[in-house]
Amino acid sequence: MTIDEKLKKLRAYMAENNIDAVIIPSSDAHQSEYSARCYAMREWISGFTGSAGTVVVTASHAGVWADSRYFIQCEKEIEGTEYVMHPLVVQTAAEWVTWIAENMTSGQTVGIDGRVFSLAAAGDIRSTLSSRGIKLALDFCAANVWEDRPAMPTAPVYVHDIKIAGESAVSKISAIRAFLRVNRADAIIIDALDEVAYTLNIRGGDVACNPVTYAYLTISDTQSTLFIDEVKLSGEVKSYLQSIDVTVRPYEAVEDWLKEGKEGDVLCVDAGKFSAYHRELLSDDVMVKNVTSPVAMAKCVKNPSEIEGMRSAMLKDAVALTEFFRRVESEAVEKGYDEADLASLVIDIRRKQEGYITESFGAIVGFKENGAIVHYRPEKGAAKKIEGSGMILIDTGAQYKDGTTDITRVWYIGEPSEEEKRAYTAVLKAHIAIERLVFPEGYSGPQLDAIARKEMWAYHLNYGHGTGHGVGAAMNVHEGPVSFGNKGIPVGVPMQEGMIVSDEPGYYKTGGFGIRIENCVLLEKKHENELGKWLGFKYLTLCPIETRLIDIDMMKDEEIEWLNAYHADVLAKVLPLVEGEDAKWLAEKCAPLYRK
Amino acid sequence: MTIDEKLKKLRAYMAENNIDAVIIPSSDAHQSEYSARCYAMREWISGFTGSAGTVVVTASHAGVWADSRYFIQCEKEIEGTEYVMHPLVVQTAAEWVTWIAENMTSGQTVGIDGRVFSLAAAGDIRSTLSSRGIKLALDFCAANVWEDRPAMPTAPVYVHDIKIAGESAVSKISAIRAFLRVNRADAIIIDALDEVAYTLNIRGGDVACNPVTYAYLTISDTQSTLFIDEVKLSGEVKSYLQSIDVTVRPYEAVEDWLKEGKEGDVLCVDAGKFSAYHRELLSDDVMVKNVTSPVAMAKCVKNPSEIEGMRSAMLKDAVALTEFFRRVESEAVEKGYDEADLASLVIDIRRKQEGYITESFGAIVGFKENGAIVHYRPEKGAAKKIEGSGMILIDTGAQYKDGTTDITRVWYIGEPSEEEKRAYTAVLKAHIAIERLVFPEGYSGPQLDAIARKEMWAYHLNYGHGTGHGVGAAMNVHEGPVSFGNKGIPVGVPMQEGMIVSDEPGYYKTGGFGIRIENCVLLEKKHENELGKWLGFKYLTLCPIETRLIDIDMMKDEEIEWLNAYHADVLAKVLPLVEGEDAKWLAEKCAPLYRK
Repeated sequence: MTIDEKLKKLRAYMAENNIDAVIIPSSDAHQSEYSARCYAMREWISGFTGSAGTVVVTASHAGVWADSRYFIQCEKEIEGTEYVMHPLVVQTAAEWVTWIAENMTSGQTVGIDGRVFSLAAAGDIRSTLSSRGIKLALDFCAANVWEDRPAMPTAPVYVHDIKIAGESAVSKISAIRAFLRVNRADAIIIDALDEVAYTLNIRGGDVACNPVTYAYLTISDTQSTLFIDEVKLSGEVKSYLQSIDVTVRPYEAVEDWLKEGKEGDVLCVDAGKFSAYHRELLSDDVMVKNVTSPVAMAKCVKNPSEIEGMRSAMLKDAVALTEFFRRVESEAVEKGYDEADLASLVIDIRRKQEGYITESFGAIVGFKENGAIVHYRPEKGAAKKIEGSGMILIDTGAQYKDGTTDITRVWYIGEPSEEEKRAYTAVLKAHIAIERLVFPEGYSGPQLDAIARKEMWAYHLNYGHGTGHGVGAAMNVHEGPVSFGNKGIPVGVPMQEGMIVSDEPGYYKTGGFGIRIENCVLLEKKHENELGKWLGFKYLTLCPIETRLIDIDMMKDEEIEWLNAYHADVLAKVLPLVEGEDAKWLAEKCAPLYRK
Repeated sequence: MTIDEKLKKLRAYMAENNIDAVIIPSSDAHQSEYSARCYAMREWISGFTGSAGTVVVTASHAGVWADSRYFIQCEKEIEGTEYVMHPLVVQTAAEWVTWIAENMTSGQTVGIDGRVFSLAAAGDIRSTLSSRGIKLALDFCAANVWEDRPAMPTAPVYVHDIKIAGESAVSKISAIRAFLRVNRADAIIIDALDEVAYTLNIRGGDVACNPVTYAYLTISDTQSTLFIDEVKLSGEVKSYLQSIDVTVRPYEAVEDWLKEGKEGDVLCVDAGKFSAYHRELLSDDVMVKNVTSPVAMAKCVKNPSEIEGMRSAMLKDAVALTEFFRRVESEAVEKGYDEADLASLVIDIRRKQEGYITESFGAIVGFKENGAIVHYRPEKGAAKKIEGSGMILIDTGAQYKDGTTDITRVWYIGEPSEEEKRAYTAVLKAHIAIERLVFPEGYSGPQLDAIARKEMWAYHLNYGHGTGHGVGAAMNVHEGPVSFGNKGIPVGVPMQEGMIVSDEPGYYKTGGFGIRIENCVLLEKKHENELGKWLGFKYLTLCPIETRLIDIDMMKDEEIEWLNAYHADVLAKVLPLVEGEDAKWLAEKCAPLYRK
């Protein structure tokens, strides 16, 4: 079926249901960042494959709202179809709602599938549209016209080792029950897949790169219920769930559970995750209390076992990365590799490490100007060959049984220019500013973000993304609610001891080169005085940072000291685990930096 | 009348009107930071004189909600009365609403004077109370029981010189009309006193320290009306207003104007300033559009004439401060001055400068441990004598015809300790970090605030207030909407060329000493490249910064260079204007700092 045939079919279905416009988002029913193929309706109906974007179809218009990362790709993918691209001015804004409000008339009806819109998002849409007299129907499932829609994934669930989890599911459930008592609530529904997996100490494989499984978890004072496709549960997992007093019901039965709510019941939901469709199923007699999920807050503060697991995963990653980066430098040109070959190579090398599961995100390997495309993913066929001279930016990560990694390094084929060295050194200074920072407890990422940037601003350089993001432990590599960017949350969730974030300033010269230097760092207590606790960051990632690209005259003594101490530590920890060429490469790369 | 007698009278009035609780705030009808005595109802009914705080009275309870700055003072002032202090956990939170919601029952009525509550604030109160079935009456004016309530002030209005204003009132009104057209609105009401004065290029003296006059301004496409007590207008001012086509009507007639609104009219208001009572006067047929006032945004970006006026005021201030600080150092101990004497002395000295009007805020002079009380105001009788040895923190400012100043310096009697020098140097480094900062256009104060703090965090020091605030030009010394703190607005109003803010990090050791180093700084363009414009700060304040308190080993070369260049510039600009002892003192204080 061509895109235009699909559109025709959708419009017929709309007409049948008296729907004048439909909004098709990229989300799944759990508001996941990454989702299963069966939720790729936006891609199916438009041909646009970006990770984010929204389609709106009316009788006379078909539009894709894409953000600046995807302007070129989107235009290319919708070429020759009826679709028109609407470039988003603000990446996260629902500018398509404004378009609808301005292009439709009072009395018309917009249809959405309320299953894939959060209560909060649907509420925003409704309030914009209702001011224009436009109705919103939550039960129009555009995906009904999708023939050959993939089935929901059924990857097996496994139990996450308590030695790595560090806290039993029983204890976590008990903490949620304490939360319910404080909030005078009868039950909570947990929609976010990582929160479900975290609470029950289970993992799954339904979504690429993220060790989660499609399920809902509801907890009341007396009952915990996991709504999941039973085919994913082995006998062992079933016994485990029984042992922690969790009842298993079919995935779809969560709808019955919602309908069962009795008069006076107070149900806690996170309106940013709980679906608008599920809200409709609740009886009017049930009181809905919108809360920040207590699981999200608990999950982002790692316990000692989780931290130990992360350190173990980082060390395994260090061994793999030593071989990988050594081979990038020595073999890439000689063997005629392109960027996509390197993205495959790192998987092959990491796979040799114990407990390796999968990538934690699709590898970014950008040679020369491709490094300047922040979300560049090399594809075999279209990827750039590593030849001549230039910078290679490599941002990869892995899921191990005991932890999750995320690291960016930059290497150079040939001789770097002064401009490249200047930019690289500025980025490194920004990276080190966070590594060395000491700050009073209570500050959040958005309040600290400029401390990294300031080092680059002095050279009139900057970057368009955040300084970092929360990192899950044996969990999603992007983890909220902690944020470490220059936008968003006013003050946000304060940084706390035990949180893990990335530290990844960068610089991108369009058409030229890209630089990013990223370690995962753990929030640690560094000091205590009459003003309270003082926190700082401690790197978990153990991998040399290229010194050949440094302009040493730009570096302060204390920055050189930090870098030398880091390399000495990497060498001490990783050298005993590698051999031969790898050992030689590591020792060379960890050599201390001196002023001439 | 004793406080308890006043309470008895208020309760009788409440009973008469079927009001079960009354909220009495500190605000005036324009949501001013400083207001006239006739609005001091909270002080009259409770005896608590702090600049902020809220009283709630029910039949059985009388409470004052005060923030941490006033805990001690409030307890002392309400001692022996029925009042109970409720310490605010969050300084700006309406925690008294929560108290009311928890301590009153469904069906009861809370009364407020809707004139002194903004539409936004009253809306928040109503929504909290209505969820408990508690009613809110906007027309209960507790001040009706205030015998001898002062009359509204009637200080004369004068025309602000166009040479200083730099833009005519006609031009400013025309910009507001353009704003109305873009917003498809028929009229706007301007409630904020500084916005009224700014728009019309008039000044007044109704409020201490702020050159404003009580008035409302309404602008439609065809008419501009100033609602003001005519007694404040001289013939000259009346002719001026006529010349710019502004109609004058009595202050109270704004209520008639609001009632006159016709069906379909769209009225712009700033819900944070527009009163809840005024909202009630509008016909249901008038559409109210909540906007950020275009005047507030225009006002905070200073034009070249305003900047020139500010520079002129700063130079006059520099001459006065040279004499003042010289005498603080040489005469204070000898003549037996206390803190209050110094607060008077600075007024007497500044008064000699051309165009001096008044202080821009009540002077803060804190010797030794009093310096650690952030909002300390010395009062004759209770003030500390300058004797022995210790630090003196002096934070003062002036209103001149051509500009507004705000400066904090710290001096020392005797020999400072190592701890004092360490803290002073850390604060100075934080101050210089802002003075030297270069950053890309688009960033706001809250995003930059930590760049100052970082210098102090390295020594495990911090301060509880913001790094700075917006400063008006011949206008209020605290000026929104620009903010430069670590709290509040998510991203906030971006810093722009021509804005003026204060740079005033500090350190406060309770029971020990207080440090703050403050300059007013102008936002200037420093660079432009492919990423856009780069901004930075340029000091306007010209006054030596004590070097005797510096631990030079803590200073980076570039910090010493900045300080020496600043002192060289102060000397070059101010020395030609002072003589004798003052000239000698200035030259000594501006001597360059060298490493031993």
